[in-house]
Amino acid sequence: MRISPTSKPQVFITMGDPAGIGPEIIVRSMASSLIRDLAVFIIIADASCIINAAKKLGFQKKLAVRKLDDGGQTEIVLDETRVNVLDAGAPLTNIKTGIPTAEGAKKTLDCLDSAISLMRDSSDKTRKVLVTAPLSKEAIAEIKPGFIGHTEYLAEAYSLDLVTMVMVGENFSVVPVTRHIPLKDVAEKLNERLIRDTLFQVIENRNIICPRKDPKIGVSALNPHAGEGGKIGDEEARIIMPAVEEARGVYKNITIPMSADTVFYKAYRKELDIVVAMYHDQALAPFKMINFDSGVNMTLGLPFVRTSPDHGTAFDIAGKGIANSESMEQAIKVALRAIHKNVK
Amino acid sequence: MRISPTSKPQVFITMGDPAGIGPEIIVRSMASSLIRDLAVFIIIADASCIINAAKKLGFQKKLAVRKLDDGGQTEIVLDETRVNVLDAGAPLTNIKTGIPTAEGAKKTLDCLDSAISLMRDSSDKTRKVLVTAPLSKEAIAEIKPGFIGHTEYLAEAYSLDLVTMVMVGENFSVVPVTRHIPLKDVAEKLNERLIRDTLFQVIENRNIICPRKDPKIGVSALNPHAGEGGKIGDEEARIIMPAVEEARGVYKNITIPMSADTVFYKAYRKELDIVVAMYHDQALAPFKMINFDSGVNMTLGLPFVRTSPDHGTAFDIAGKGIANSESMEQAIKVALRAIHKNVK
Repeated sequence: MRISPTSKPQVFITMGDPAGIGPEIIVRSMASSLIRDLAVFIIIADASCIINAAKKLGFQKKLAVRKLDDGGQTEIVLDETRVNVLDAGAPLTNIKTGIPTAEGAKKTLDCLDSAISLMRDSSDKTRKVLVTAPLSKEAIAEIKPGFIGHTEYLAEAYSLDLVTMVMVGENFSVVPVTRHIPLKDVAEKLNERLIRDTLFQVIENRNIICPRKDPKIGVSALNPHAGEGGKIGDEEARIIMPAVEEARGVYKNITIPMSADTVFYKAYRKELDIVVAMYHDQALAPFKMINFDSGVNMTLGLPFVRTSPDHGTAFDIAGKGIANSESMEQAIKVALRAIHKNVK
Repeated sequence: MRISPTSKPQVFITMGDPAGIGPEIIVRSMASSLIRDLAVFIIIADASCIINAAKKLGFQKKLAVRKLDDGGQTEIVLDETRVNVLDAGAPLTNIKTGIPTAEGAKKTLDCLDSAISLMRDSSDKTRKVLVTAPLSKEAIAEIKPGFIGHTEYLAEAYSLDLVTMVMVGENFSVVPVTRHIPLKDVAEKLNERLIRDTLFQVIENRNIICPRKDPKIGVSALNPHAGEGGKIGDEEARIIMPAVEEARGVYKNITIPMSADTVFYKAYRKELDIVVAMYHDQALAPFKMINFDSGVNMTLGLPFVRTSPDHGTAFDIAGKGIANSESMEQAIKVALRAIHKNVK
C-alpha cells in the first residue's frame, strides 16, 4: 500500500496514545490554515478519536477520513484540500480519556507501524516528514518489553546504526551524542567515530535544526573544565578534538570542546546555535531548564526528518480541552523546515 | 600569632593573584559602609597592591595596614573602625598587572597560608568567615604541582575528609557531590555515605546557603530519566534513595532523586532552593548558564564558612578600573549570613 504523490510536500502525523492529549493537540494544530497551506497533512490515527476531538473544535468538516487497511487497497489518493485522516488498526472498544491501557498502547504502535510502512514505500523521500504525538513508554513497554521510545523504535525499523536526537529550542538546540544509557557507561560508549558521525549528521541538517545562515555549532567536553589539559580525563584530546577536526573539514563553524558550564552559557547568550553534548543529562538538564514544555524533539538519520513535541501524554489533563498545542505546532513547523523553504 | 577577639564578627579576605582583579574588587567592595559596619574586615594581602587600588578609589584613609610577620608579634589587635590590611609574605618585586608570574603565584599562596594559620588559631570559631579572591590555578600549579583549587587546598590544610562545594545563585544554589574527577570515575566514586554526608552538611548549613525558612532541597538522579525504574542504571535505588531517606530523618524538606532535566526546571521555577547533584557538570552546566559571573562559590565542612566570587582572575581587564565587584560583594554578603543574623 502506498500514498499517491501530491503537489505539496507531505506531513505524516501519528496520533500517539489515544487516552492522552495527542488527538486534541493534533486537531488544534490543524486549525491554522497558514500551516495547512504549506503541506498535505496525513494523520494516522484512530479515526473516531480524531473526529471526536475535531467536533469539539467545530473542525470535523475539514477532515477527509478513510480506513487504512481496506481490503485490496494499493494506493491512497489524498485530499489536498482537507486534513487526511487514515484510520489504522482495529476499532477501539474500551478507551477512557486519561487512562493508559494495553489496548491504547497497541493502537499507538499500530499507528506508528502504519506510518513506518507508508513512509518506507514512498517514492518521494525528500518531500515528506513525520511528526509523532506523545506515547506512553510505560504502557507500550508492558506489551512490547524493551521499548525505549520513538527514536530507538524508528532506528530499528529502518535498520539504522546511527540516528541523532536533537532537541530544538527557541534560543539554542542540543544534540546528545549518547542517549539513554547509564552514566557509568558513557565514557566507554563514546568514541571518535560516533562523535564524528553525529557531527556530520548535525552539519548536514544544520539548517533544519536552525534556520539561521551558517549556524554556529558548539561542542561540549566530557570532563569537568574540559579535562584541564588532561588532568581530569583524556577524552577531550583523545577522541573529541580529532572528531571536531574531521568535522571542520566539511564545515568550519564548530568550536573546540569547551567545558559544559561554558558552552551552555554561550548558547544561552546566543553565541552558539547548536550544542553537541556528550551525554543525555549534559545536554538535557540545561536545555529543559529553560525549554521544559516548549522544546521540539527531532530525529536525524532516518530517510525523513521526524519531530515531536517535547512533552508527554499528559493523561491528567487529556480530554479536558485545556491541553496547549504550542509545542505540537512548533514540532510541525520545525519539521516543515526540512521540506519547505518558506518556513523559518 | 593570633588575632585578638573583636566585638564584631570577623571576615578574612585573601587577595588572590596580585596581577589579577583581586585587589581592585576587594577595595571596591569595602567602599560600602553598610557592609563594613556588619563585621571587622581583615584583608590578607600584599599591602602595596591594596594601597594602590585604594588610592585609585580615594579609599586609602579607611585602611589600617600592618606587616603580618613582624618579629616577636604574637597577637594582632585589629582596628574595628577601619579595614585591616595584613601584609603577608615578601614584598613583590616584579609584578605587572595582567601578567601571571611565579612570584605572584607564591604571594597568592603566602596570603592563603597566612589566612589558614590565623583562622586555625582563633578561639572564636563561630564568628569568622573567609572570603577568597580569585587565584590562577595554572600559575600556582607551576610552583605547586597537583594544586587543584581553593576548596581542595583548604580541605587538605585542615585534614578534612569531606568538604562540600556549593554554588550560591540568585534563583537557586547547587551542590555537586563529586567534583573535579573524570566523568568515567563518577559512578564508582559515588556511594551512599558520601551522598548522605553531603546532604547532612547541606542541611546543617541550609540557611547560610539560602536565607529562606526551611529551604527546599532537590536531589538529582545520576542516570537519564532517573534510571527509569532501574532500566537505565541502579544507583538511584541502590545508593541515592537510601541516603535521602537517612537525611530525611533529620530534615523533611528533601525530594526523592529526580531526573536532572526535571530537578533544574523546578529550581529555575523557584520550586526548589538548593539542588544536590551527583557530579560537576550536572550541577554546574545549568547553574552557570544563568549565573555565569554572578554566582558565589562556598565551601562547607571547614571550621568556618568560606566563599569566593565565581569568576577568575580576569587578567585581561585587571588594573583597568573596569572590573565588576558585584560577585565579590555577593560573596561577602553570603559569607556574612553565616555569622550575622541580619544579612539576607
